[in-house]
Amino acid sequence: MSQNAARNLGPATALTCRECGETYDLGPRYACELCFGPLEVSYDHTGVTRETIESGPRNIWRYRGLLPVPSNVADTPNTEPGFTRLVRADNLAESLGLRSLWVKDDSGNPTHSFKDRVVAVALAAARELGFKVLACPSTGNLANAVAAAAARAGIRSAVFVPSDLERQKIITTAVYGGTFVTVDGNYDDVNRLASELAGEQEDWAFVNVNVRPYYAEGSKTIGYEIAEQLGWRLPEQIVIPIASGSQLTKIDKAFQEFIRLGLVEDRPYKIFGAQATGCSPVSAAFKAGHDVVQPVKPSTIAKSLAIGNPADGPYVLDAVRRTGGAIEDVSDEEVVDSIGLLARTEGIFGETAGGVTLGALRKLLSAGVLDPDAETVFINSGDGLKTLDAVAPVAKPSANIAPTLEAFRKAGLA
Amino acid sequence: MSQNAARNLGPATALTCRECGETYDLGPRYACELCFGPLEVSYDHTGVTRETIESGPRNIWRYRGLLPVPSNVADTPNTEPGFTRLVRADNLAESLGLRSLWVKDDSGNPTHSFKDRVVAVALAAARELGFKVLACPSTGNLANAVAAAAARAGIRSAVFVPSDLERQKIITTAVYGGTFVTVDGNYDDVNRLASELAGEQEDWAFVNVNVRPYYAEGSKTIGYEIAEQLGWRLPEQIVIPIASGSQLTKIDKAFQEFIRLGLVEDRPYKIFGAQATGCSPVSAAFKAGHDVVQPVKPSTIAKSLAIGNPADGPYVLDAVRRTGGAIEDVSDEEVVDSIGLLARTEGIFGETAGGVTLGALRKLLSAGVLDPDAETVFINSGDGLKTLDAVAPVAKPSANIAPTLEAFRKAGLA
Repeated sequence: MSQNAARNLGPATALTCRECGETYDLGPRYACELCFGPLEVSYDHTGVTRETIESGPRNIWRYRGLLPVPSNVADTPNTEPGFTRLVRADNLAESLGLRSLWVKDDSGNPTHSFKDRVVAVALAAARELGFKVLACPSTGNLANAVAAAAARAGIRSAVFVPSDLERQKIITTAVYGGTFVTVDGNYDDVNRLASELAGEQEDWAFVNVNVRPYYAEGSKTIGYEIAEQLGWRLPEQIVIPIASGSQLTKIDKAFQEFIRLGLVEDRPYKIFGAQATGCSPVSAAFKAGHDVVQPVKPSTIAKSLAIGNPADGPYVLDAVRRTGGAIEDVSDEEVVDSIGLLARTEGIFGETAGGVTLGALRKLLSAGVLDPDAETVFINSGDGLKTLDAVAPVAKPSANIAPTLEAFRKAGLA
Repeated sequence: MSQNAARNLGPATALTCRECGETYDLGPRYACELCFGPLEVSYDHTGVTRETIESGPRNIWRYRGLLPVPSNVADTPNTEPGFTRLVRADNLAESLGLRSLWVKDDSGNPTHSFKDRVVAVALAAARELGFKVLACPSTGNLANAVAAAAARAGIRSAVFVPSDLERQKIITTAVYGGTFVTVDGNYDDVNRLASELAGEQEDWAFVNVNVRPYYAEGSKTIGYEIAEQLGWRLPEQIVIPIASGSQLTKIDKAFQEFIRLGLVEDRPYKIFGAQATGCSPVSAAFKAGHDVVQPVKPSTIAKSLAIGNPADGPYVLDAVRRTGGAIEDVSDEEVVDSIGLLARTEGIFGETAGGVTLGALRKLLSAGVLDPDAETVFINSGDGLKTLDAVAPVAKPSANIAPTLEAFRKAGLA
């Protein structure tokens, strides 16, 4: 416990195994020594009120009393992610026949995806745990977020990506400096190498490996913000993309915490999950009524969701079934169509993951699973600027003309 | 006047010629009928206090009492730009030998450039003036902003771009729907066609042509935000990119308004302008001691600043000379180097325009023109994701390895 006290992780009190309930001191652990189950941060959340939150900064640190970070976390240089827009989507709602719809638009984060949230929490915890380097295996958004956060914090980053990654994604990470290694192999190979390195490089914090319990808590802030931005209440329905499944389970955790703390009314909400059909192991398990998730080999344009063996799959199934929700998956064509629909109706250019989520929402609505009269929120977790190739075949000009009034008139565009 | 009353443009009272002082009723005008000088919005700004501003929304509409927009502007669907981060750049300051440095990071806007601000104001004014279509000639950021804002507002957009525009920029505008025309010609040809169309299509508001006086006012919000975010005071030095020159003159106008309204202390500030050497007509005029700006043919990677005949050039010279500032220009190599420096020190990936501005800041500092002990702000007006090609030659991985610990060790990266 004295070690915990020296490690200033705010309200965090212990790490607890999600499977067997064994507890551990706060430290650089991520798996249970008894059953190999994933570890989760436990808290003492006394003293958090709407007022303490509202008086905080306009970023995720307004919720620092609910995260495993020091109370002075906002004073240390960081990218200040969060408090992204919750956009009332009346045009989109009308086109879909929904009564009340909101988009939580996380493309507004510093490197334009929700990953800035989890990385900021991982960085703060990693510092307290004595790590010196911020590292990760990634195929895109996480690489950007880690390299940027480390640059801003003035520490070293070490990012590992598959060597066949698109040139654009190489540039957007390399520009931040730091150690940036391309690895001859697929993402699974890179991930395995990162796990091996995490065991060997004692002062390297691989955000999504050896500090994962802290990192994952950052996704709770999406849930907190939605509830606060709705005026301190929970939506009746929420649609969330599933990659590892962590974002979905943490938004559920956030809602439960807010209820327990009396910050919002305790009323039912339903959680819906969204996957691309080309990587839909959790959707398949949900539809088959299974409790376990069968790994798959991903093949979809929604690369930020392409995790074939999602670590939190079983917990996603629990949360969705407990709340009376459902999980749906959509084809790549439906993804592209939904990116376009969101852009045309609300002026928001979402990533493929956003297209997956809106696509699933539409499919669930058509099937009568989503209630058109219940207030609904869906997550756009990233930015269309990072996945231009997906919409290139359909996002085209109306006409090409000569630079004259006559050419304009002939084109019939007036 | 009754016509003005019907047009609810908030505190705006008239349009005034910058050259001869002739005044006009508020309407869809942009040039003086007597001398062809540009028209500027005049106001009655009574009743604006720190408190009225602070109680407003966290976007540009908190300053609605200082803009030509209706008082209920925030209730109409819009992209809600502004209140972007003012980032304290201690790492960068230390590397440059500056005492206190801030970056106003406008890449955080909805379509990731400051253009969302001016377009939002143009849209609000255009509605009041009875226009039905939001239009523009553009080569990039403005096209994105207009198409997105119109989509969100549920009105039609009409965007005109040169047909040789990069494929990426075509996609990022086309995705929002609307009328999107590629024109066989250079930007000057497109601009000329837009001016002709503005005379012919009575209900089309070309934001940067026939509603330009309203549109340009949107840039004042950058100045307001900097002063408010510094704790209601002006910086001692500010470095601003120059394209048309409008952004620089409007930030100056914002500071002057805040002083006149007693919202900040009246103390001296110096304004510095930044151009790319490949398009530096205003810098050349400043250095030569001229009052007029000689047009040039642009050739620079900083395409968002590549306006060879800047409309507000003379007014930029006035503001810079009046405040005791200076104007500098930098090579494309310096632009790329400064984009990298900003990314590596602060985790902010700026557009080429941001590289121009930081590059000019560095050059002015080296020359002893900028005071290293005075508090300094510079503007990053856009997002590096939109100008990837500029940094592609230098933003490269540290190493490529096989997926093994041994390969990692051999690479000497531990």
